[in-house]
Amino acid sequence: MMAPPLLVTPGEPAGIGPELAVLLACEQPDLVLVADPALLESTLKALASPARVVAWDSADNTAPRANTVRCWPVALRAPSRPGQLDAGNARYVLDTLDQAVDLIANGRARGLVTGPVHKAIINDAGITFSGHTEYLAAKSGIERVVMMLVAGRLRVALATTHLPLARVADAIARDSLLQTIGIIHHDLSTRFAIARPRIAVLGLNPHAGEGGHLGREEIEVIGPALRELQDLGMDLVGPLPADTAFLPSRLEHFDVVLAMYHDQGLPVLKYAGFGQAVNVTLGLPWVRTSVDHGTALDLAGTGTADPGSFRAAVALAREMTG
Amino acid sequence: MMAPPLLVTPGEPAGIGPELAVLLACEQPDLVLVADPALLESTLKALASPARVVAWDSADNTAPRANTVRCWPVALRAPSRPGQLDAGNARYVLDTLDQAVDLIANGRARGLVTGPVHKAIINDAGITFSGHTEYLAAKSGIERVVMMLVAGRLRVALATTHLPLARVADAIARDSLLQTIGIIHHDLSTRFAIARPRIAVLGLNPHAGEGGHLGREEIEVIGPALRELQDLGMDLVGPLPADTAFLPSRLEHFDVVLAMYHDQGLPVLKYAGFGQAVNVTLGLPWVRTSVDHGTALDLAGTGTADPGSFRAAVALAREMTG
Repeated sequence: MMAPPLLVTPGEPAGIGPELAVLLACEQPDLVLVADPALLESTLKALASPARVVAWDSADNTAPRANTVRCWPVALRAPSRPGQLDAGNARYVLDTLDQAVDLIANGRARGLVTGPVHKAIINDAGITFSGHTEYLAAKSGIERVVMMLVAGRLRVALATTHLPLARVADAIARDSLLQTIGIIHHDLSTRFAIARPRIAVLGLNPHAGEGGHLGREEIEVIGPALRELQDLGMDLVGPLPADTAFLPSRLEHFDVVLAMYHDQGLPVLKYAGFGQAVNVTLGLPWVRTSVDHGTALDLAGTGTADPGSFRAAVALAREMTG
Repeated sequence: MMAPPLLVTPGEPAGIGPELAVLLACEQPDLVLVADPALLESTLKALASPARVVAWDSADNTAPRANTVRCWPVALRAPSRPGQLDAGNARYVLDTLDQAVDLIANGRARGLVTGPVHKAIINDAGITFSGHTEYLAAKSGIERVVMMLVAGRLRVALATTHLPLARVADAIARDSLLQTIGIIHHDLSTRFAIARPRIAVLGLNPHAGEGGHLGREEIEVIGPALRELQDLGMDLVGPLPADTAFLPSRLEHFDVVLAMYHDQGLPVLKYAGFGQAVNVTLGLPWVRTSVDHGTALDLAGTGTADPGSFRAAVALAREMTG
């Protein structure tokens, strides 16, 4: 008997998600794609692949057959063509996520790897959607999750995510920092098998405020929050100046760097990751990883998209559920 | 007859600046150190160097002799010991900068490489000092300069520098962007011999505001400013999302990336630079480069400090004045 499989949602049907997902499923036939079977068939055909789509029976725990792409079928709401967004399929994209979450909640699958979705087209369809991370958290009844990007041995978590820069400083508060760091500590221990995670926490301001000359959040908010958690025994360092925290000689002392906001941490992570970065949601009751790139509509259907990040996302989900 | 030399100010006398500066002067005897000669002598002695300090006569254009460290003498104001800051020498540090600027203004030297200073001790001495960049600009009667960091082929300039994060969004304005980009364009053409500099400009907000969903500065301020300059014929791209602008495949299309603020651009630059980054001030009437590290008081006097960044700063100043 096999362990429950990993699910893959290919994401936006008009983007590069479907072709990358079938590519991975051909390489790794134990994966189950939550998607429209006809879309997957036509994608395989366009790639001149000999593989066939087979419906996955969630009660069947036998090993997958070679040259098959296992699929949990979810019907498209409108015809889909590579490169051409259609708000009519926004609901389809969310259907695939909903079905995946239900399968995991029912113990039929052990984790989820998500392909790229197109936020604007979902919002254009009249559905408020700010991203996978927030959607999956709400769907699981979880209030706070943490976005972490992983590139090889470098891990960067974010204290705030998709906020206008002008609102970041006000969003850095004691309670949310305590919760965020608590989630990171818990998930690195349980999902990444790091017995005592060493967490580097960046300051909010340049030079981490330089003793208060360049901002006081480090003195008034971040520093005290770190001391509370250090008193509980956590291995924390900070607040550190962001520009020197990523020097390789320093990084080797940390298991993860917590950046205060998106553009403080992700440019260096993606530079280091070289297109192979993986987005992980911490704080969910199950494992979710994701590609770190978009739908690349201009490449969809050409078969030239780089599967590196998607492949890395699957590999990391295996590690985290292994 | 030799060209006028490059000057080096070793910076804080109790830091690692003096030992790095004499090391470089021994390697490259055409450099002239603007510093206390007795301090340099004792530093050479501590390094067990056979070289001797000689006074540099600014009218003498003959080649330097081997095993000498040329010095434009500026007297310490108080005795100095490695690792021990003394506010009594704050004035000395500024004296060395003042003398260097005068020598360049009088055509006796062709540029300046600065070692690390300790801002807090200068301020403790009752002298308002926010950094070399600002001090040298004021001393030269220049209102706006641009801080640019260079690591190999990667160049990152900053639209704002040492500001609390909460004040960054308000500081991004049309006029200052036009001036900043104008300076970058001018200096890359004249000092870096790039006929038509390709400048990538980052957005302020995550995902460059994602069409206004994550902030409107890109739509209201940055985008219009870029279009004004594009209409003048400049080769500009942006506003770009910061997290993907540094992907190596994108970087090859740009000569410089303009980040909107300190921690958006410098973590990736310093990560890429691996301790060899150089700080350059654009917009001055002469060439100034600098190490990108601090005074490292704990290493001072041990002879173990890494000269990589200081050496790179000298090399870049040579290129820019060559």
